[in-house]
Amino acid sequence: MADIISAFNNVIKDIPPFAVPAIKAATILILAFCVIKFSESFIDRLLSIKHYDKLPVNENKRKTLTSLLKSVVRYVTYFVALINLLQLVGIDTKSLLTAAGIGGLAVGFGAQNLVRDVISGFFIIFEDQYGVGDYVEAAGVAGTVEDIGIRSTRLRDFGGQLHIIPNGEITLVTNHSRGSMRALVEISVAYEENLDRVMEVLEDVCREVRSRREDIVEGPTVLGVTNLGSSEVVITILARTVPMQQWSVEREIRKAVKERFDKENIEIPYPRMVYLKMDTKGEDDGS
Amino acid sequence: MADIISAFNNVIKDIPPFAVPAIKAATILILAFCVIKFSESFIDRLLSIKHYDKLPVNENKRKTLTSLLKSVVRYVTYFVALINLLQLVGIDTKSLLTAAGIGGLAVGFGAQNLVRDVISGFFIIFEDQYGVGDYVEAAGVAGTVEDIGIRSTRLRDFGGQLHIIPNGEITLVTNHSRGSMRALVEISVAYEENLDRVMEVLEDVCREVRSRREDIVEGPTVLGVTNLGSSEVVITILARTVPMQQWSVEREIRKAVKERFDKENIEIPYPRMVYLKMDTKGEDDGS
Amino acid sequence: MADIISAFNNVIKDIPPFAVPAIKAATILILAFCVIKFSESFIDRLLSIKHYDKLPVNENKRKTLTSLLKSVVRYVTYFVALINLLQLVGIDTKSLLTAAGIGGLAVGFGAQNLVRDVISGFFIIFEDQYGVGDYVEAAGVAGTVEDIGIRSTRLRDFGGQLHIIPNGEITLVTNHSRGSMRALVEISVAYEENLDRVMEVLEDVCREVRSRREDIVEGPTVLGVTNLGSSEVVITILARTVPMQQWSVEREIRKAVKERFDKENIEIPYPRMVYLKMDTKGEDDGS
Amino acid sequence: MADIISAFNNVIKDIPPFAVPAIKAATILILAFCVIKFSESFIDRLLSIKHYDKLPVNENKRKTLTSLLKSVVRYVTYFVALINLLQLVGIDTKSLLTAAGIGGLAVGFGAQNLVRDVISGFFIIFEDQYGVGDYVEAAGVAGTVEDIGIRSTRLRDFGGQLHIIPNGEITLVTNHSRGSMRALVEISVAYEENLDRVMEVLEDVCREVRSRREDIVEGPTVLGVTNLGSSEVVITILARTVPMQQWSVEREIRKAVKERFDKENIEIPYPRMVYLKMDTKGEDDGS
Amino acid sequence: MADIISAFNNVIKDIPPFAVPAIKAATILILAFCVIKFSESFIDRLLSIKHYDKLPVNENKRKTLTSLLKSVVRYVTYFVALINLLQLVGIDTKSLLTAAGIGGLAVGFGAQNLVRDVISGFFIIFEDQYGVGDYVEAAGVAGTVEDIGIRSTRLRDFGGQLHIIPNGEITLVTNHSRGSMRALVEISVAYEENLDRVMEVLEDVCREVRSRREDIVEGPTVLGVTNLGSSEVVITILARTVPMQQWSVEREIRKAVKERFDKENIEIPYPRMVYLKMDTKGEDDGS
Amino acid sequence: MADIISAFNNVIKDIPPFAVPAIKAATILILAFCVIKFSESFIDRLLSIKHYDKLPVNENKRKTLTSLLKSVVRYVTYFVALINLLQLVGIDTKSLLTAAGIGGLAVGFGAQNLVRDVISGFFIIFEDQYGVGDYVEAAGVAGTVEDIGIRSTRLRDFGGQLHIIPNGEITLVTNHSRGSMRALVEISVAYEENLDRVMEVLEDVCREVRSRREDIVEGPTVLGVTNLGSSEVVITILARTVPMQQWSVEREIRKAVKERFDKENIEIPYPRMVYLKMDTKGEDDGS
Amino acid sequence: MADIISAFNNVIKDIPPFAVPAIKAATILILAFCVIKFSESFIDRLLSIKHYDKLPVNENKRKTLTSLLKSVVRYVTYFVALINLLQLVGIDTKSLLTAAGIGGLAVGFGAQNLVRDVISGFFIIFEDQYGVGDYVEAAGVAGTVEDIGIRSTRLRDFGGQLHIIPNGEITLVTNHSRGSMRALVEISVAYEENLDRVMEVLEDVCREVRSRREDIVEGPTVLGVTNLGSSEVVITILARTVPMQQWSVEREIRKAVKERFDKENIEIPYPRMVYLKMDTKGEDDGS
Repeated sequence: MADIISAFNNVIKDIPPFAVPAIKAATILILAFCVIKFSESFIDRLLSIKHYDKLPVNENKRKTLTSLLKSVVRYVTYFVALINLLQLVGIDTKSLLTAAGIGGLAVGFGAQNLVRDVISGFFIIFEDQYGVGDYVEAAGVAGTVEDIGIRSTRLRDFGGQLHIIPNGEITLVTNHSRGSMRALVEISVAYEENLDRVMEVLEDVCREVRSRREDIVEGPTVLGVTNLGSSEVVITILARTVPMQQWSVEREIRKAVKERFDKENIEIPYPRMVYLKMDTKGEDDGS
Repeated sequence: MADIISAFNNVIKDIPPFAVPAIKAATILILAFCVIKFSESFIDRLLSIKHYDKLPVNENKRKTLTSLLKSVVRYVTYFVALINLLQLVGIDTKSLLTAAGIGGLAVGFGAQNLVRDVISGFFIIFEDQYGVGDYVEAAGVAGTVEDIGIRSTRLRDFGGQLHIIPNGEITLVTNHSRGSMRALVEISVAYEENLDRVMEVLEDVCREVRSRREDIVEGPTVLGVTNLGSSEVVITILARTVPMQQWSVEREIRKAVKERFDKENIEIPYPRMVYLKMDTKGEDDGS
Repeated sequence: MADIISAFNNVIKDIPPFAVPAIKAATILILAFCVIKFSESFIDRLLSIKHYDKLPVNENKRKTLTSLLKSVVRYVTYFVALINLLQLVGIDTKSLLTAAGIGGLAVGFGAQNLVRDVISGFFIIFEDQYGVGDYVEAAGVAGTVEDIGIRSTRLRDFGGQLHIIPNGEITLVTNHSRGSMRALVEISVAYEENLDRVMEVLEDVCREVRSRREDIVEGPTVLGVTNLGSSEVVITILARTVPMQQWSVEREIRKAVKERFDKENIEIPYPRMVYLKMDTKGEDDGS
Repeated sequence: MADIISAFNNVIKDIPPFAVPAIKAATILILAFCVIKFSESFIDRLLSIKHYDKLPVNENKRKTLTSLLKSVVRYVTYFVALINLLQLVGIDTKSLLTAAGIGGLAVGFGAQNLVRDVISGFFIIFEDQYGVGDYVEAAGVAGTVEDIGIRSTRLRDFGGQLHIIPNGEITLVTNHSRGSMRALVEISVAYEENLDRVMEVLEDVCREVRSRREDIVEGPTVLGVTNLGSSEVVITILARTVPMQQWSVEREIRKAVKERFDKENIEIPYPRMVYLKMDTKGEDDGS
Repeated sequence: MADIISAFNNVIKDIPPFAVPAIKAATILILAFCVIKFSESFIDRLLSIKHYDKLPVNENKRKTLTSLLKSVVRYVTYFVALINLLQLVGIDTKSLLTAAGIGGLAVGFGAQNLVRDVISGFFIIFEDQYGVGDYVEAAGVAGTVEDIGIRSTRLRDFGGQLHIIPNGEITLVTNHSRGSMRALVEISVAYEENLDRVMEVLEDVCREVRSRREDIVEGPTVLGVTNLGSSEVVITILARTVPMQQWSVEREIRKAVKERFDKENIEIPYPRMVYLKMDTKGEDDGS
Repeated sequence: MADIISAFNNVIKDIPPFAVPAIKAATILILAFCVIKFSESFIDRLLSIKHYDKLPVNENKRKTLTSLLKSVVRYVTYFVALINLLQLVGIDTKSLLTAAGIGGLAVGFGAQNLVRDVISGFFIIFEDQYGVGDYVEAAGVAGTVEDIGIRSTRLRDFGGQLHIIPNGEITLVTNHSRGSMRALVEISVAYEENLDRVMEVLEDVCREVRSRREDIVEGPTVLGVTNLGSSEVVITILARTVPMQQWSVEREIRKAVKERFDKENIEIPYPRMVYLKMDTKGEDDGS
Repeated sequence: MADIISAFNNVIKDIPPFAVPAIKAATILILAFCVIKFSESFIDRLLSIKHYDKLPVNENKRKTLTSLLKSVVRYVTYFVALINLLQLVGIDTKSLLTAAGIGGLAVGFGAQNLVRDVISGFFIIFEDQYGVGDYVEAAGVAGTVEDIGIRSTRLRDFGGQLHIIPNGEITLVTNHSRGSMRALVEISVAYEENLDRVMEVLEDVCREVRSRREDIVEGPTVLGVTNLGSSEVVITILARTVPMQQWSVEREIRKAVKERFDKENIEIPYPRMVYLKMDTKGEDDGS
């Protein structure tokens, strides 16, 4: 072994000093080439379709992403190799690094939204904040979740619109599909009605609606007098239903109450106003 | 001992200079391997289920977190090892560090929300701002606390919706379950009524409600004339109750007052308007 | 080869030490010249018209962009060359770099909006958030997409205005042209009407409208009693239509209902008010 | 002494060069151990209960804080020792420092809210902005101060809710318990009343209320005509009272005025409307 | 040539070592002088009036800008020269650079608005977002563009006010002068009218208006029943006109409809209210 | 002198090399001690009471500030000394500096509000934006200035509340105590009145009020018809008064106008409504 | 000259090595002294009163500014000198620079508002956005400009209040004193009036007002029917006037129209309501 070593030493000694940069430059270029090749095959493997059974990415997007990531890796490698080559020929690269750093900083600042979107998307999936088909409110809009992506979420509004929300915009999520929902109907009756009789009638209507519908989880129950309004006494009825059925139950209760009240002659009052007659200012009422 | 030392010295001397980088590289790789192994077992121990009796994390989340943390440690170690290897072969890594630093900065900025969530979560638990079952308002929504996590809190709204709030969004917390709550009922009576008699009646109703309910902590008491409205004198009744019973108490007081007023012939006034007759402009009132 | 090497060594040795800077300076200037030439041809190729079949850029903009990018490259190269030359004559450039860095930082911060616009624009196209001709809401305005650029999007409002929105301002997008849209008509009927008969008539109107129009995807169906208003019972009719036809369908349903109600003598109620006569305060009603 | 020195010199000379790193490593580990021990006892002393007579911290929080601070010190020390050991074996730590720096920066940014809370808390106590028992408004809520902590303040709302506010959210503070408070009552009288007589009566009522209550600091005085409303002349009464009694005084003034007006036959006017009769458009008034 | 070199070498050798700093200092000062002179002439040329035919800058502004830019260059050069001189006499300038850097950073942060304004201004002109004479909305105000500068835009409001908007404040631009504008008139008719006849009449009016005006691009057409209001049926008329003529067209349509309705005896309804008589509560209607 | 020098040289030569660190360490500790002592006496002098005649700080605050500043200086000195000592024993302190830097950065960011407050406070005093006793609006609240501090301002609201505003929150200041204030009274008269006569009467009232009050600086003058309301013609009266007297003057003008109008029989109109009788829809008016 | 040089060389050689630091320290102190003296005289000259004829600064402010700037320069110089002295005695100043840098950064961040104010102030003057005496709106307030400073602007509100606005808060400026202003009066007439006759009368009034006033630049002209209101047809009159006279012209037009309408018997309509009689629900109208 000592022979090999001494032979190697001789070879090294024979390299003239001015050739060292050339050898170094060659090494840098070879390394850069290897890094690019390796990264590209790594990216190909990382983004190959079989990893993503949970988060299905369509083929088109996969291709675009792959070529985008490869470009980023390639240009970063070019840049690092360039800096090293410049240093070999004795160019001071501090100024170049400063220029690149400032450019990069601007990109980094601009890209922080993207990072925030991805982190937020990770937590939406990790904490199971909502799933496809849930009815959720987030970022000021509401709709049924059609798609959860790593960068954005798509909600379908009742009106048919498609909301595309970057996940980073989603902070507080309100999920309407986790547990039973409340149906709430406010019934106004005139001050002249007998409250005990009204509530008896309403309880009967509640029993009737309950018997008709299977999607009611709890109630409906008559809560009591929730407001003494200017023209009416307000009584509130409450039920808990299977998610998304609350509005249908409310409509059914409203119709049943209206029809029963017609039958029982209980009045749902119009706005009322007491008027006091008086003649034009300062004069007697000569009528 | 001097012998060992001199023997060691000889060994070192015998290493040809060009072999030093190879030995260094081997050391770096062995070290990197050790760091990864050690960190992984450390993460396994840190996240093992028995530490978290207070903050129960479910098994699934634990596994995801474990593998996520291991990936982060593994890639950081790879990166540090890579930089050291590159320097061994004489590549200047300043440019690479700049590129990585800018990427890392973007990630760091994007991740600061996560850090804020965790710090905020720590203080929610540390200061006992609310517990599971409390009714709280925070970040613009309200509900009963179902779950307090280190990153997010889940509130169940009265309407049945589930609010998922990142802890970092929670700054001001309003807790409705710490101490007795106020029930407040405003009663309107006509200007024509005798105020002293009305207040006597109301006080009697208060005594009656008090005797019926055990969840009233204090009152109800008649506060006095709180407004001289356009058509009515407003009198306010106040009580303090066990948390979450305030609305039920308010409903009971309202019903009791309504029924007593019917009995006592005290009027809850409709809106009033005085009208002055006049004929079309500029002409006499010929009626 | 050894001859060439030794010859080369002799040449190097013969260079007097004070000439080294001059040679270095020449090298720097030549390199700078090469960099500028190469970058310019690279920019020319990058921006040549044939790459952009998907994202058509007009010729004028292309020219301006080309000369702008060339200026940036030229001035950065000048700056790096200058720093290297100054260092050759022994000037410390740390202070100059600090000054340039601060200036550059201000530019970088100011330019981050531009970066954000471009990243956002990339995702709009990559995720196919909307296409030309879609009717979308974004950044608080709405309109038909006329143009999607890498930095900004142009929407044509119904009113004829052209909205020019930097893509970075677009976070949440609401697209009205993906799937069927909802047409919703609220019909008020008097409390005195028979609800069952009214709903029968409305269902008949719905069938009739359906048969007349082919752009209705689903419905129209009578949903039920959605409000017990102060003067009216509100019944809601719902349909799903081809995008952008929802308003036309709503108008048609409204007209059909109005005409049918006239025929069937069903009243759409005016606001109602119950009035109670009373004389001026404290006095008897002498009428 | 020269002997000791030369002896020492000999010892040093005898250490073989390869042993220096081992000695350095041992020194680093011993130092790290000492730092941890010392810091822990320092933290124990710093947080021992006797320092905090003014700012009472409960025992539980103290323990959690102590162990938290110890962990932070321990891990920082580990990190510094690790970096030094790696450098001893020739590993370049710049890359590791970059990675740690970015992680630390994210933590630092996330923690700045905490720092702001503590600084803000310091100034609340230092400037005596409010004390326990004061009624204050801050950060959009109001309540009686129950607790002032170095990180957060707790307010008890009139409704019974407990507001927990991080001090950093408190910028503008409105303190209702520093000095006398204003009670303000607006009285409406009809345009037909004689203003001088009304004001005389009101001044008399003021004198009467003043004589009855000791918590009035100044007034009540009749300010004058503050509005010529559409149906009424508005006269304002003003008083200054002991803090938190202003509402009670207002109620008392209101009741006294109402009763006196009843006695004096001064009218508090209902809204008025002049109506002009006209027949359906375009036709004569045939009545 | 070898002679020149050796002669030069001798000269260099003869310079006593302590004189080197003096020579360096002189070089620095001469360089600084050159830089200032060159920059000033460069600035003079850059800002000379002939370059700016598109973006006319008035003479006064040009002079101020020139002297401002010269001052900036002069002081930066002074600062760099000073640092180099201090280093020559052995002063460590790191601390000075830190101080200057912090000051510069504050300036840089403060100046980023200016940079944003200029970048935004560039894109307004580059993307031709609006031109002088267009009627645009931006940054919450609207007006006719009077002047587009690189830092700010001036709009003349209809009211005569001049809005001066920094370009950086302009994100979303709404341009009213690109394409035809919509004129929209809503006509209310009584529920009692025959809808088919009303729409016939309206279509006739539309034809008539169309024939009279040449600035109408499309329509006017009767859209249909757009609302079933509480007292009226609302019918909408729509036209597209030359920019800025939409309001004039709307006024003309309104007048034409009013006059035609008068002729055709179609009623534009007043608000309606159904009143139901009732006597004071609980009593019979004795009238 | 050469003797002293050579003697000194001998002493230095005699110091064994391993003793140098010990001497250095001693020097560092002595310097640290001196710095602390000097800074403390400097802080004592700086904060001694006699400097602050303009900005009176109370004794308690002074003491707290003094001991706070001393702690800061002491801990910074400890830290610098520690770093130097660690370097003496060969510990690499880069990692420690990184850790401290990140901690310090978090503190620095958190403390920038404090800096902003002080700078803002400086300008409030320097530009004399308001003085104690002025009535100002700032940061959304209003009140009489009770105290201007370097960090915060205290306003006393008319309601008696004390607003404590950090100066950094004060950007736009509205000062009501610099120059004469406007008193503005709007008088409604019926459409039936003769406008010329009304304005004559009002001008007479103005003259009368003017003669009675000395705190009116200018006016009152009758401005003219400022609105043609739905039921009334609005005429505006304007005056300029001594600061804080504007409301009192307004009340006086209002009372004077009301009384004069009573005398002159000029009517302040109630809201008016023209009603058109019609029978229930579709039927004739059979009355 | 060679003699001088060799003599100088001898002097330098004779300086014992340990004396070099002392000489350096002396040099540093002397330099620091010179810098302070020079800067102070420079500041004195820079701020001497004669430069500021355009931007008059009062004497008091000048003095405060001068002494403030001198203090800043003095303390920065002390700091730089101190760092250099510490390095002379072998203290590592990296840690001190870190500490100072963090403190400075906090100051720098806090001071960026000040920088923004000054830059904004510069552009207000440079672009002549407004001058003293102009009536402008900015930062949410409006008033006549009383003073334009480099850091803040003072506006005098019509109400007499003085608004002090930091220039950095001023982004969008609305200047009411550049060009003619619009006077706009909306006249309501009854639906029953003949529109052509009304417009003729109004045009006559316009001619009359025009002839009376010289401050009208253009118009007044009758624009046409701008609204078909619920009870009235709205006709708009428009004029352009000299700045600040628009309100006076509007008042004059209003009065003239009112008086002319009285003469011509054209009615300005009261709000109208059609009422339909009906008896209590479900019963016949027995009247």
